[in-house]
Amino acid sequence: MLTFVLVHGSWHDGSAWKAVIDHLETKGHLAFAPTIAGHGKGVNKNVNHARCTQSIVNYIVSKDLTDIVLLGHSFGGTIIAKVAEAIGDGFAGQRQRIRRLIFFDAFVLNDGESLRDNLPPHLQQLIDRLAKESDDNTMTMPFDLWCEAFINDADLELAKSSYVQLSSEPYQPSIDKLDLKQFYSLPIPKSYLYCTEDNSLPQGEWGWHPRMSNRLGLFRFVQMPGSHEVMFSNPGGLAEKIIVAGRD
Amino acid sequence: MLTFVLVHGSWHDGSAWKAVIDHLETKGHLAFAPTIAGHGKGVNKNVNHARCTQSIVNYIVSKDLTDIVLLGHSFGGTIIAKVAEAIGDGFAGQRQRIRRLIFFDAFVLNDGESLRDNLPPHLQQLIDRLAKESDDNTMTMPFDLWCEAFINDADLELAKSSYVQLSSEPYQPSIDKLDLKQFYSLPIPKSYLYCTEDNSLPQGEWGWHPRMSNRLGLFRFVQMPGSHEVMFSNPGGLAEKIIVAGRD
Amino acid sequence: MLTFVLVHGSWHDGSAWKAVIDHLETKGHLAFAPTIAGHGKGVNKNVNHARCTQSIVNYIVSKDLTDIVLLGHSFGGTIIAKVAEAIGDGFAGQRQRIRRLIFFDAFVLNDGESLRDNLPPHLQQLIDRLAKESDDNTMTMPFDLWCEAFINDADLELAKSSYVQLSSEPYQPSIDKLDLKQFYSLPIPKSYLYCTEDNSLPQGEWGWHPRMSNRLGLFRFVQMPGSHEVMFSNPGGLAEKIIVAGRD
Repeated sequence: MLTFVLVHGSWHDGSAWKAVIDHLETKGHLAFAPTIAGHGKGVNKNVNHARCTQSIVNYIVSKDLTDIVLLGHSFGGTIIAKVAEAIGDGFAGQRQRIRRLIFFDAFVLNDGESLRDNLPPHLQQLIDRLAKESDDNTMTMPFDLWCEAFINDADLELAKSSYVQLSSEPYQPSIDKLDLKQFYSLPIPKSYLYCTEDNSLPQGEWGWHPRMSNRLGLFRFVQMPGSHEVMFSNPGGLAEKIIVAGRD
Repeated sequence: MLTFVLVHGSWHDGSAWKAVIDHLETKGHLAFAPTIAGHGKGVNKNVNHARCTQSIVNYIVSKDLTDIVLLGHSFGGTIIAKVAEAIGDGFAGQRQRIRRLIFFDAFVLNDGESLRDNLPPHLQQLIDRLAKESDDNTMTMPFDLWCEAFINDADLELAKSSYVQLSSEPYQPSIDKLDLKQFYSLPIPKSYLYCTEDNSLPQGEWGWHPRMSNRLGLFRFVQMPGSHEVMFSNPGGLAEKIIVAGRD
Repeated sequence: MLTFVLVHGSWHDGSAWKAVIDHLETKGHLAFAPTIAGHGKGVNKNVNHARCTQSIVNYIVSKDLTDIVLLGHSFGGTIIAKVAEAIGDGFAGQRQRIRRLIFFDAFVLNDGESLRDNLPPHLQQLIDRLAKESDDNTMTMPFDLWCEAFINDADLELAKSSYVQLSSEPYQPSIDKLDLKQFYSLPIPKSYLYCTEDNSLPQGEWGWHPRMSNRLGLFRFVQMPGSHEVMFSNPGGLAEKIIVAGRD
């Protein structure tokens, strides 16, 4: 049985995984879903990428979780890469912290890049504009974008009920350039889990797969139907695929 | 419950949708399937693209259909774009004509282009040759092309029984260059429905998705298994996905 | 009912098809699975591509198989193209040898190319290194590559039990440049069967589909879920799709 740590993406917090965790636990696994610093409702949004990463490192270390399957969704992919740099080395006489990384419709940044560098021009312009329109350098998800491009496999009712769980996303972590040289030398096994109707990045030239996935080098490719938001639209199916992506 | 207007593609006529309409009506929706001018058996094939478009506009206006989900299949995508220009504006004091557009394995032309401009060179040559070989500037579908590349998910019996429902396709509408500036400014919501085994356009560089779909900007992406001709090979499955693509 | 000849890929031998053949026979078909010369355990690995091809030609001719559906998996695609050149012509007064070719996640080489020419640079380097490290100019499959990139839809137990069925692959047939001019003029119908999670070649620019498949010109496209090794992970599902790919 596996221990999963599920790291959410932009606009989400740890509560997004509730239904997925229920399914994972029903199948006998353990699963944790920390909220990244600066994320969620009613918190200080003044964070950078390093602060985000540190909050997840702290969570794992303070709970002394070992031998985990560490999953990052979307923006969460940039977090788990840096978390793996921080605590992904085996350490003498103890069990390893990280058994496998799962990138789930997630950014896999090239060394030196930011998340924003990996967006197509029209989405770069969108997030720049959203941040400028805010009074706290955050981006609020537009509902039509959510409904049409993020949770396109949901009906309107689910699109609405999931939308109210979102919160504004700090802009700074998306523009921080990340040093990932160490990440690309780590021997930790990696999986990429891709949802075939995910259109949050336009498919093709700018799409998640195979653009992001192939950067991992040798990895296990797992695929399922659904949108970028299957944690809401199909949590049971997602849990099954997370297990397939996470097993040895 | 929704009102669908289903616009067929080249070589087809409105009768191609019969089984799909039965499924849509069973689920409580209304569906109409006009035949485009110059299409079907035993009619004058001397039409251009404007005449084709006008025939669908006339159909919708004469029946006073409002709040419709307007779907175009294949060539029909070029028709619904121009129909939306003609009657897609809301009009004061009345219900809107068009609630949403669905492009179903359909051409989404760039402004100023023709359908032929969007074919790979070998298919451009094929349709040119077919038109030249005819005595009325039409193209007759070769059976092996139909069987192997259009309805590749059907057995030979279904390939044959559907083939006899086809009729020769006027060439002129495929070479007319379309002014689509207005279309690209319309605020009507749009969906793209893609069949994953559709090989009528070769997948990849010249494929339907994401080449055509991404031209829509913000759109809802819906996907299903099957060939270009699932209205024959899987009408029930297609009806279900049309509903998902068409709902709010 | 059809007669299939199933030609395995690199590292495999004819026994890889056992479960698939059982399923095909249960459905009333005949199926044969010869082992390519220089393949399998305990044999002389000193073969070139011509010798490999000749062994399959000899098998078909010695059994006097006619009207066959000839399938090639992976490297086997390069074999069936050359077998089709050798015996794919109809011959007077007799039934044709080959009714249809199925390329199943298979190489379709351009005229004058080798298999190695069609690998991405990092895989070219890998097979060169594997051959150099051997004492008999063969390549041994690394287990992590097998587990993660070839049979990524299997659990560890199946990955291990299938791995022990593999044998070292002669290097020479992968670097022989093939004259395929005749192949590209043969009128034999062709299908391409693609598994959507096949990551043995990285998807995208260097992937199986549509890069290899589109080289066939007019072909029937059939798709199924699974890895490069569905003959082990889903033999029943594969048998069903082989029948769909192989029927008229």
